[in-house]
Amino acid sequence: MASNDAVQIAKQLRVDGGRLYSSLLELAQIGATPKGGVCRLALTDLDKQGRQWVINKALSLGLTIVTDQIGNTFMRREGKKPHLAPIMTGSHIDTQPTGGKYDGNYGVLAGLEVIETLNDHQIETEAPIEVVFWTNEEGSRFTPVMMGSGVFSGAISQELAYTSKDIDGKNVKDELTRIGFLGTQKPGDHPCGAYFEAHIEQGPILEYQDKVIGVVPAVMGLRWFDCTVQGFEAHAGPTPMEIRDDALQNSLRIMQKVVDVANQYAPHGRGTVGMVQVFPNSRNVIPGRVQFSIDIRHTDASTLDQMTVDLKECIKDIATEKSIKIDLKEVSYFPPCNFDEGCIQTIRQAAQDLGYSHMDVVSGAGHDAIYMKSIAPTGMIFIPCKDGVSHNEIEDAKADHLEAGANVLLQSILAYAKRSN
Amino acid sequence: MASNDAVQIAKQLRVDGGRLYSSLLELAQIGATPKGGVCRLALTDLDKQGRQWVINKALSLGLTIVTDQIGNTFMRREGKKPHLAPIMTGSHIDTQPTGGKYDGNYGVLAGLEVIETLNDHQIETEAPIEVVFWTNEEGSRFTPVMMGSGVFSGAISQELAYTSKDIDGKNVKDELTRIGFLGTQKPGDHPCGAYFEAHIEQGPILEYQDKVIGVVPAVMGLRWFDCTVQGFEAHAGPTPMEIRDDALQNSLRIMQKVVDVANQYAPHGRGTVGMVQVFPNSRNVIPGRVQFSIDIRHTDASTLDQMTVDLKECIKDIATEKSIKIDLKEVSYFPPCNFDEGCIQTIRQAAQDLGYSHMDVVSGAGHDAIYMKSIAPTGMIFIPCKDGVSHNEIEDAKADHLEAGANVLLQSILAYAKRSN
Repeated sequence: MASNDAVQIAKQLRVDGGRLYSSLLELAQIGATPKGGVCRLALTDLDKQGRQWVINKALSLGLTIVTDQIGNTFMRREGKKPHLAPIMTGSHIDTQPTGGKYDGNYGVLAGLEVIETLNDHQIETEAPIEVVFWTNEEGSRFTPVMMGSGVFSGAISQELAYTSKDIDGKNVKDELTRIGFLGTQKPGDHPCGAYFEAHIEQGPILEYQDKVIGVVPAVMGLRWFDCTVQGFEAHAGPTPMEIRDDALQNSLRIMQKVVDVANQYAPHGRGTVGMVQVFPNSRNVIPGRVQFSIDIRHTDASTLDQMTVDLKECIKDIATEKSIKIDLKEVSYFPPCNFDEGCIQTIRQAAQDLGYSHMDVVSGAGHDAIYMKSIAPTGMIFIPCKDGVSHNEIEDAKADHLEAGANVLLQSILAYAKRSN
Repeated sequence: MASNDAVQIAKQLRVDGGRLYSSLLELAQIGATPKGGVCRLALTDLDKQGRQWVINKALSLGLTIVTDQIGNTFMRREGKKPHLAPIMTGSHIDTQPTGGKYDGNYGVLAGLEVIETLNDHQIETEAPIEVVFWTNEEGSRFTPVMMGSGVFSGAISQELAYTSKDIDGKNVKDELTRIGFLGTQKPGDHPCGAYFEAHIEQGPILEYQDKVIGVVPAVMGLRWFDCTVQGFEAHAGPTPMEIRDDALQNSLRIMQKVVDVANQYAPHGRGTVGMVQVFPNSRNVIPGRVQFSIDIRHTDASTLDQMTVDLKECIKDIATEKSIKIDLKEVSYFPPCNFDEGCIQTIRQAAQDLGYSHMDVVSGAGHDAIYMKSIAPTGMIFIPCKDGVSHNEIEDAKADHLEAGANVLLQSILAYAKRSN
């Protein structure tokens, strides 16, 4: 295919934004919440209904369906050269308990909209195209998060995933069986030529900068810690200030340091204390123990390490100065992930050719694309979401942004799958 | 009675420390917890058992019993001049859910030990002596705290107290009736010549200074606030640091200020944040709202007001600087309480004459004596408790300190009731 043809295609071919938007609203009915969001937890009856709705849509588009042993489901449009590794796109359709309509669902339905557009124009491609929905990306019901793509890529063992239990003690394997999505294909035993994922930004940068398309060069690495500060519980009245061992007051400096290290390594540093528990949590008792979470992120692995070193030094100083016990336990680590230069450039060029304003936006959140990156050239396309809000029932995105992202996805897939007619 | 006689008494008369200690351990069996503490919440079956145990002991000492309409129970040893207002002592026998053996119980049983000592030595007094246990001092099951003495002194309306409900919806009047302690005497319709209360310090100062007796000149005033800081909930990864509205980070400065104002007005200032709630309290979500309690105390009313002003100024500054909404609601106020100079001097002199090391200790905690102070000359006697720990099952006090406090109580009561034989 000559470069002129590609430009031609980019200029002419468009998805049907209205159809895409309708399908998003239709899928959002399954598990719809009163506040306009969606609650469709992984491997529940509602997830089953959602999966079946998506599969029915894929079947109506003439796609063939394969489900693997962890429930990842691949919907394939055959290429002229079936032996070529398929160009893949997708995301997930499970949601947070108070999730929105777009997160995850958009990546899957944008993929199907791309297929439908190709069907409408009877465009054939050299390589097959597959739309995938991964099992349990959210991790709300079962840990770890990004389970399906994690098992597919080999980063998470299938056994670990199978035995993961929800709070009622039900495990993933039983629940996959129950909803009829325990497939036969061994996870990962499935080629992939390249992977593209379209997603709402889940942050405010695009909206703030008034850009339509975010080209995602990388996903931040993150380190999660649980910090426990010991103090001595005592009555808030009779205990003089100078002999107190107030676990909360000693925690405050660490909580501030979490933000300080993020600011110190701006603009790609992040630091958040999201979860705090005070014991005994009584108005007139000096806190005897405080537990809190630490979430630090950065695009650069060595900087993320340095942030950790700085933080630990601060904690050590406080522990020494106050003669107290502070425990810091790492509970999660994802290294920064840089996407494929070819995919990034393809997405950027497509946005450019389509006339959409665009900018590079590092992803602060995790996505299935992180795991796919280890087995195929991978890229991500972001579109703005209202006020940067996600994982929330009020999550919102504009119809023309959803359409724009799908058009960029279409062009990117075509660039890799290659038009053959 | 000549002054020489009084000194004579002070030198000769002693309570039986072993007997007092045994009675404390015996009462502690009712509602005993596995960790060695006591759980005997106000107006429960266990409280009923405790009350009956105390009354039986009082009856065996020849005392007459009167219970008022709020369940306060007065145990009277008649004086030579029954028309004189009785010299009163006592405290409470209800406990915290994880309370100790001494808090409250000590004041009541030390009173009965004083009576038994007077009986043993066939000492008569001019004025009657009464030992009282007040209803629901702790406020753990029913609010407000110090209910019985509050109603007795007229500071709390009887109607308000009667309609106070526990978490199961049971009210005070019904529970008083159920346990058989709804008396007929109108609360407060009962004279009182002077009131003395012996209590463990509930703080570490006496132990720290190695003193046996604390002479209590005053009780700190306190102001309790609920503070709510609004932020904007957002994803911890994608949201850049500079556009965050992190409710926790903005709360930290206020929490620190609470301690700062206490230190600024040392040594009698106190500042504690004991209770914190973060919303949504999720590891990877920037806190959208934080609620926390503020407890500030001081012995001087105008200084306590100034601490409040300083705190409000700091809150206003943060709200303005960050353009955020911070709500500060006062939920409780007790002004500082200065005890009667005559009672204070009597206690100090008794400790001196008995050869006990002593010092003045301001009470940081509330006691029934605060309400009694409004209707009669009132004083308090503190003894050390281990590590200053109270409201805890490990609460502990030494037998000789318990004995010393009771001896000071005996002398103080005798100084007011006056020996007549």
